[in-house]
Amino acid sequence: MSIHPIDYVKSHRQQFVTELKDFIRFPSVSIQPKHSRDLEMCAVWLADHLRLIGLEGVRVLPTKRHPLVYAEWQHAPGRPTVLIYGHYDVQPAEPLDKWQIPPFKPKVYGDYIYGRGSSDDKGQLFAHIKALESYLRTNGRLPVNVKCLFEGEEEIGSPNLFSFLLQYKQALSADVVLISDTHIIAPNRPAITYALRGMLSLELEVCGPKQVLHSGSFSGAIHNPLQAICEIMASLHDTNGRVAIPGFYDRVRILDKNERNYMARVGPSNEQILRDAQSESSWGESGYTLYERTTIRPALTVNSVVGNHLGPGSEGVIASRALAKISFRLVPDQTPSEIEHIFRQYIAQITPHTVRTKVFSISGSRPVVINRRHPMLRSAVIAYNKSFGAKPVFLRSGGTIPIVSFLQDILSIPTVLMGFALPDDQKHAPNERFYLPNFFNGIETIIWFLAQIGGEL
Amino acid sequence: MSIHPIDYVKSHRQQFVTELKDFIRFPSVSIQPKHSRDLEMCAVWLADHLRLIGLEGVRVLPTKRHPLVYAEWQHAPGRPTVLIYGHYDVQPAEPLDKWQIPPFKPKVYGDYIYGRGSSDDKGQLFAHIKALESYLRTNGRLPVNVKCLFEGEEEIGSPNLFSFLLQYKQALSADVVLISDTHIIAPNRPAITYALRGMLSLELEVCGPKQVLHSGSFSGAIHNPLQAICEIMASLHDTNGRVAIPGFYDRVRILDKNERNYMARVGPSNEQILRDAQSESSWGESGYTLYERTTIRPALTVNSVVGNHLGPGSEGVIASRALAKISFRLVPDQTPSEIEHIFRQYIAQITPHTVRTKVFSISGSRPVVINRRHPMLRSAVIAYNKSFGAKPVFLRSGGTIPIVSFLQDILSIPTVLMGFALPDDQKHAPNERFYLPNFFNGIETIIWFLAQIGGEL
Repeated sequence: MSIHPIDYVKSHRQQFVTELKDFIRFPSVSIQPKHSRDLEMCAVWLADHLRLIGLEGVRVLPTKRHPLVYAEWQHAPGRPTVLIYGHYDVQPAEPLDKWQIPPFKPKVYGDYIYGRGSSDDKGQLFAHIKALESYLRTNGRLPVNVKCLFEGEEEIGSPNLFSFLLQYKQALSADVVLISDTHIIAPNRPAITYALRGMLSLELEVCGPKQVLHSGSFSGAIHNPLQAICEIMASLHDTNGRVAIPGFYDRVRILDKNERNYMARVGPSNEQILRDAQSESSWGESGYTLYERTTIRPALTVNSVVGNHLGPGSEGVIASRALAKISFRLVPDQTPSEIEHIFRQYIAQITPHTVRTKVFSISGSRPVVINRRHPMLRSAVIAYNKSFGAKPVFLRSGGTIPIVSFLQDILSIPTVLMGFALPDDQKHAPNERFYLPNFFNGIETIIWFLAQIGGEL
Repeated sequence: MSIHPIDYVKSHRQQFVTELKDFIRFPSVSIQPKHSRDLEMCAVWLADHLRLIGLEGVRVLPTKRHPLVYAEWQHAPGRPTVLIYGHYDVQPAEPLDKWQIPPFKPKVYGDYIYGRGSSDDKGQLFAHIKALESYLRTNGRLPVNVKCLFEGEEEIGSPNLFSFLLQYKQALSADVVLISDTHIIAPNRPAITYALRGMLSLELEVCGPKQVLHSGSFSGAIHNPLQAICEIMASLHDTNGRVAIPGFYDRVRILDKNERNYMARVGPSNEQILRDAQSESSWGESGYTLYERTTIRPALTVNSVVGNHLGPGSEGVIASRALAKISFRLVPDQTPSEIEHIFRQYIAQITPHTVRTKVFSISGSRPVVINRRHPMLRSAVIAYNKSFGAKPVFLRSGGTIPIVSFLQDILSIPTVLMGFALPDDQKHAPNERFYLPNFFNGIETIIWFLAQIGGEL
C-alpha cells in the first residue's frame, strides 16, 4: 500500500467538496413532475461518477418513475458483501423565499455546505462513493465485496423500490446493508441509529355541495367542507396531546426501565431538542421526555388542509370539497395496515351527516429496531471511534427509512445506519446544510468500517 | 318620440349581447395583481362606451389600485338625480379546470351567456348602460338626471371607494342610488332586495417553531401550527351549528312574527335553497329556515387554511406557521368592529400556550335594511311589473354590497337594489352565467323605472 486511503481523503478534501457541489446542483426533486428530467440527468451523472472511480457493472435502471443506479465491485472472494444504499432524490425546496442561497446552487460558508440535499441524502451518499474511491485509488482494490444501490424515490415513499428488491433478491444478496441517512448528536459525539419510526401517509377528503358556493348566499345553511375538515382534524388529538383514535396506543410496546435509562443517558435533552426545533415550547404526551415522544411514541401530523377554491379571492366562497394530508409516525408493534384500519373506522364514526368523507392510502412503512449487539454494529463502533475519536452511542430516530424495514423483514439483511448529519442540518427545510468535518470524518468512518469487516484492520 | 326606448331594446338585443361579450372578455380580476393592466383597459373600454352612447363628463379616475369610471347626463332640471353604481371587476376564475368554457371567452348557450362576470356584475351593470342608450337614441334625452359610478374594487372590499365618495360627496349627491348586483327568485318571479348582510374578513396567524420541521425528528414533541389552527377553527362553532364566540348573537335583532311570515311567504323554500346549492343536506342553527339562516342570521365561514410549507412533498414536514382566512356575514344590529373585538378576545382566550396567534383585519361592512315603503321602491315595483309582467316581491339577501351601507349610513341616499341575476347563476363559482331574458327584461325595467321617477310614465 503506497498511500493509505485515509491520507488520500485528507489530501482530496477540496476535490470532494467540488464534486459534491456538482451532485447537489441537480434539482432532483422526486415529487415534482417538472423535475423528472433532472432526476434522470442526476442518475446518469451518478452512474458516470461510479464508473470513474472504478466500480463495475454500472447501470441506470429505469422504474415507473425515477431510475435506480446500480454499481458493484466483487473481487474479494471469501470476504463479506456490503450493500450500500442511498438516495439521490431530494425534498422540494419550497418555500424558496426562505433560502439564503438558491437551493440548487450549493455554497460553502464556514464549515458548512448549503443546498437542498446537502445532508439528505446527497452528501451522505457521496461519502460512500468517496470512501470507495479512496480505497480503490490507493490500494487498487476494496477490502470487501460491494454493491451500490442508489434510488431516486426515497422522498416519495420508494414506490418502485420494493418490487425491484424482490425481483433481484438473489443478485442483491449481501451480509450487511450500509446506509448513511441519519444524524449523530454533535460533531464530537458520534452515534449509530438503531431504531426508526414507521410511517403511514393518508389523505382525507371531505365532500359537501356539488359546487363551490357564494358565502353570502349560503353561509349559515350549508356545512362548509373546510370547516368540517378542521373539525375532523381537531378530533384526532385529545387535549393532552395524545392521538384520540380509539385503539391507537394498544400495540405500542412499553420499553423497560433499562432501555429508557439508556436513552436518557445518551440521547438529546429536552432543551437540546427544543433548540434544534427552534421552538419555545414543547407539546405532547406527558410522562415522556421529548426524545421519547419523538422516538418510542407514535405521532400524527396534519401536513396540509386545502379547499377546492384556491387562490386569492377565496374569501367570498365556500369550498365544495376539502382535502387533508396526514401522516403517522409509528413505533413497534404498530403496523401501517392496522393503524389505517382504525383510522378509517374512527373517521367513519366522527363524520357528521352533513358531509361525506373518503380516506385514501398513500404509503406505509413499518417501524424498525436493529439489534445493537450485532457484530456489524460492533464493527461500526470501532470505525466511528477511529475517525471521530469518540465512541458512538446508540440512538433512536423519529424518522423513517422505508428500505430498512423492508430489508430487515423481507430480505433478512441487517442494516447499519451510519449517519453523519447533525440534528440542526435543516433536513426537509430551507437552508439545508451539511457539516463538512462530518463529511470528511464520514468518509474515513466508512473506510475504517470496510477495512474492519474485511479483516484488514 | 319616434320609436319607444322599449322597441329599441327589442330590436337591438343581438348587438347588446355582442357588446356584453366584449365587456366580459377583459379578465378584470381585481384581487390578482397580474390583471391590473386588464382592469385599466376594461375601465378605458367602459369609459369609451359611455361616451359612445351619449353620456357626458366621462372620466377614468385613478385610485391607489383600480380606477373608477364616472359619467353623467344632467339636462333634466327639476327632475330627480339617479346615481347608478356597478362594478366592472370580477372574482378570480380559479379553479379553471371546472369551467366548461374559458372563463374570459364568453359564449351563449341556449338562453344563457357564460363567462366570469356575466352576472356579477358586468351583465347587470351593462343593462343600465343599454337602458340609457335606448332612451338617448330614441328620445335624444333622459327622463332624469343621471350619474354613473362604476368601480373596479368591489370584489376586494372597495378599499378606495369610500374615501372617494366622501371627498366628492357634493358632486355625487343624488336622490336615489340604483344598483343591479342582486338576484330575483325565478325568471317569472321578480324581486327587489331590501336587506343585505354585512361582512367582516379577518386573518388568523398561528406561529409555532421558527422554522419548518422534519416530522420524523419532531412529531409528537412540538405543537404543529397547522393542527393548532384546525383546533382553533373547530372551536369557532358549537356542535349545533352556532358560532361559539361568546357574545356573538347578543346584538342580533330578533324579527317579529309578521316579518318572518312575510319572508316565509315570498322567500325561497328549504328545498329551493338546497337545489341552488346543489347540496344534499342542510346545516346550521335550528329554529330557522334556510332562507332565514342565510339572511337574518349571521354566519362564519372558514375560507382557507394553509401552512407555510406548501407544495407537493409537504408530507415530510411540520409547518412553522399557519394562516386561516375567515369571514363573517353580519346582520342588524351587529357591527364589524364589535364582532372583530369579541373575535380577538375569544382567540386570545382559546390559544394554547404552545403556539402564538395574531389576528389581522382585512375588511368590514355593516348590514343594511332598506325601507320597503320608500317611494323609490314603489316606483321600482311598477317598473318590474311592466317589464316582467309580475309584481316583484321583497327579498333579503345573504350577500354584502359594501357601498349600500356606506351610502345609507354616511351619505343618507336611499338605494334601490334592482337585481336581475338568478340564484343559480354560479356567481363567484366556475361556469358563471347570466340568463339573457333577464338581461333584456332588466334593461326594460330600468327604462320603466327612470320614466316612472321622471314623471314620464
